[in-house]
Amino acid sequence: MCVSNLETSNEALSRRQKVLTIDTMNANIKKVEYAVRGPIVQRAVQIEKELKEGVKKPFNEVIKANIGDAHAMGQRPVTFFRQVLALCSYPELLDDDKFPEDTKYRAQRILKACGGSSIGAYTASQGIECVRQDVSRYIERRDGGVPCDPDNIYLTTGASDGIVTMLKLLTAGEGRTRTGVMIPIPQYPLYSAAIAELGAVQLNYYLDEDKCWGLDISELQRSLQAASKHCNPRVLCIINPGNPTGQVQSRERIEDVIRFAAKERLFLMADEVYQDNVYAEGCKFYSFKKVLYEMGPEYFNTVELASFHSTSKCYMGECGMRGGYMEVINMDSEVKAQLTKLVSVRLCPPVPGQALMALVTNSPQPGEPSHAQFLKERTATLGDLAQKAKLTEEILNTVPGIRCNPVQGAMYSFPQITLPERAIREAKEKGQAPDMFYCMKLLEETGICLVPGSGFGQKEGTYHFRMTILPPADKLKILLSKVKEFHQRFTKCYS
Amino acid sequence: MCVSNLETSNEALSRRQKVLTIDTMNANIKKVEYAVRGPIVQRAVQIEKELKEGVKKPFNEVIKANIGDAHAMGQRPVTFFRQVLALCSYPELLDDDKFPEDTKYRAQRILKACGGSSIGAYTASQGIECVRQDVSRYIERRDGGVPCDPDNIYLTTGASDGIVTMLKLLTAGEGRTRTGVMIPIPQYPLYSAAIAELGAVQLNYYLDEDKCWGLDISELQRSLQAASKHCNPRVLCIINPGNPTGQVQSRERIEDVIRFAAKERLFLMADEVYQDNVYAEGCKFYSFKKVLYEMGPEYFNTVELASFHSTSKCYMGECGMRGGYMEVINMDSEVKAQLTKLVSVRLCPPVPGQALMALVTNSPQPGEPSHAQFLKERTATLGDLAQKAKLTEEILNTVPGIRCNPVQGAMYSFPQITLPERAIREAKEKGQAPDMFYCMKLLEETGICLVPGSGFGQKEGTYHFRMTILPPADKLKILLSKVKEFHQRFTKCYS
Repeated sequence: MCVSNLETSNEALSRRQKVLTIDTMNANIKKVEYAVRGPIVQRAVQIEKELKEGVKKPFNEVIKANIGDAHAMGQRPVTFFRQVLALCSYPELLDDDKFPEDTKYRAQRILKACGGSSIGAYTASQGIECVRQDVSRYIERRDGGVPCDPDNIYLTTGASDGIVTMLKLLTAGEGRTRTGVMIPIPQYPLYSAAIAELGAVQLNYYLDEDKCWGLDISELQRSLQAASKHCNPRVLCIINPGNPTGQVQSRERIEDVIRFAAKERLFLMADEVYQDNVYAEGCKFYSFKKVLYEMGPEYFNTVELASFHSTSKCYMGECGMRGGYMEVINMDSEVKAQLTKLVSVRLCPPVPGQALMALVTNSPQPGEPSHAQFLKERTATLGDLAQKAKLTEEILNTVPGIRCNPVQGAMYSFPQITLPERAIREAKEKGQAPDMFYCMKLLEETGICLVPGSGFGQKEGTYHFRMTILPPADKLKILLSKVKEFHQRFTKCYS
Repeated sequence: MCVSNLETSNEALSRRQKVLTIDTMNANIKKVEYAVRGPIVQRAVQIEKELKEGVKKPFNEVIKANIGDAHAMGQRPVTFFRQVLALCSYPELLDDDKFPEDTKYRAQRILKACGGSSIGAYTASQGIECVRQDVSRYIERRDGGVPCDPDNIYLTTGASDGIVTMLKLLTAGEGRTRTGVMIPIPQYPLYSAAIAELGAVQLNYYLDEDKCWGLDISELQRSLQAASKHCNPRVLCIINPGNPTGQVQSRERIEDVIRFAAKERLFLMADEVYQDNVYAEGCKFYSFKKVLYEMGPEYFNTVELASFHSTSKCYMGECGMRGGYMEVINMDSEVKAQLTKLVSVRLCPPVPGQALMALVTNSPQPGEPSHAQFLKERTATLGDLAQKAKLTEEILNTVPGIRCNPVQGAMYSFPQITLPERAIREAKEKGQAPDMFYCMKLLEETGICLVPGSGFGQKEGTYHFRMTILPPADKLKILLSKVKEFHQRFTKCYS
């Protein structure tokens, strides 16, 4: 046996000896996909490194418009939040005159609720009680007085954590009795990823691109009927305002959805993390909770609902803090005890994120020293986002072959792109989704990182990309004009 | 039909109509148990509320010695850590003369590595690169130069997150091919909870109480043999220093375990979160990584190992920050890509916890302005814990009917308690584990909250409790003398 054969055989042996391999690992996890941080983002990170190493490119920087990461795109944190977090981290600062009195009061209130007055202590697994009280008062104000019980609030590690936890509780059965989860297409891929990991069944309902990504009850009905033979559909997920699609549901449509869920006995999950991100005239955010309540006791006392919020979006953009909450309505009391037990295994959500949630839901009030600056910062950020939403839609719609719905809310545009037949063929020959092929070329040629529509799901034969509206206005304009140029070049090249 | 019957029937109807009930929920979650925050702790919280409301009790306060929550028990946070966290939270403080230069330098380094220089931005899902570099240099120093690749480091949301993620990857198969996970008994109940949730098979190996909770290879062998017919044993979990048992493994024993894992083709998971908490003379912490490396390439190039650390224990006690890391050794490259994908779905670990991990692994060095105070604080905390470990063992061993092994490390004593036959009978009649019955009575009569041994697992017919050594020394003495009195009273009462 020659040396090289020996080595190969040794390598094979060492390989065969591994306990954990792609063949022996959890099969559900292999099915998980998460495009927002997928191959295109990995390539973007690589290109950034190459630029640093001096590799010549037709651009000087990578612009990551792939993820709703406001601070990374230059949005400044809210001063009030960060002052209180600094005081909570290092309470010696409570003696410092630089900090306004209301920041000190909030910090002291949070610290008093922590074991040993330290944010380094574990909290109750459901979250600090006074924070859950703040959240419930916020919900009551938001919903015009609809009552909210702090005992129905669970603080979470970002909204993702709450969503996965609820899906976990809801997943049961085997084969034809396996839990089916209805999700919009296009969707935020946390849903498909969690469904795959849990081995539940993903049931697609399509949003209507021609009606500004509207939700049609007959489409819900179609999706449900198609599913009922091979699984047990039990959950209906709604994302409002929509991610990646940016639509804002009307009050009437929310009523229809609730009626549908009641009739078909579906557990409602309402992802409402973009509740402050509503820009379009005539659009308004209505929470599922408020609409449910106002539909009367027949609905309010029966329909099971979990709604989710986060510190990562809206005007806060504090993604790195991993703060969030969920409210559960009409949850069976035995199940609730199980939920409380389940979250206790992970001890507690990160305390800085809990503190931040207290500040978001109990922000400075008129008369308090931080109120003026807080209001100014919040208004500026939301106003800026509204402008950028409009700008994005307008510029994209000037490009022949790109068609963009109004960005009514959230933080993304999700335009449809027309791709030449030859580009589609070439992509398929490479084993790539055509919009992945397109986005990859865009990245290599311009440094712009977007996520292909195939990562969110889309109607067969249509192609899209998701782009955040977060870059600063001047950079956004450059980005959009580069996308425009690229699209024209790409179309010409493959025609 | 009378009114009360009508109501009952309506209630039954509304109950029957719920989508999510104890009968339709995820069955695995029902099997999850987590004693550290179980019924006894819920009762303790209730009693605290009763005390606040003025209900008369034979005590004035509840002492929670149920959980390793250092700050809640009065341990002060390390100044250096908190100064840097305050600077990261509110970078305007970088101009403040009150903060030593080295705190500013660390804060700037962390901020520079964050998107938009904000800890509110998402980080790479595996964790901030420069933090992973700090961690890997820390590991190299700790292990006397054994090389560590930052690419093998994954930052986590506390150690719990890392442990559950690894078990998730490792769980596969059905019925007789289902993954079996070997865990020590007594164990930290995160393991049994995660195994139940994932539907893996729990395989118990018993630690030898008579040999100071020593680990015996023949017992590992017995456990494995007993399991191999009904599942596929693939994972061996070790907790060192032990929780709840407080033993510290010798270097020789670790070698034996590694040899066993290599021979039996088991994936090793080493829970090393108490690596700085070693008190007993003659005991020293050896990491599995170091021992593995020093056993030579035959082992170092083949045995698969994941080891876990946290910011919650040792001298830091920063539980609320949910910081942690895991290092994976010899992980198959395809599996590693799957792991990276899996963690990306949850976006990133909380950034304050990541920052803290950078500080723990890259703490002030001689010559830096914060060094002296840092050293003083760390030494004081660890010295204090060592004293309390000794105190706990000594006082408990003066009680007839309580037998306590030396607390060599970690933060807990796990003494065996002798219970009178009549108490055992009465507990069983109530459907309670006898040590739960004992701990519940202790709580009601003295306000002391401990966790019964049954929550960690123990040899059939033996009874224990877990008690942290964390209360301040004066309080700990009172606590121990109250336990002593109670045990004598209890024994007398039931004899």
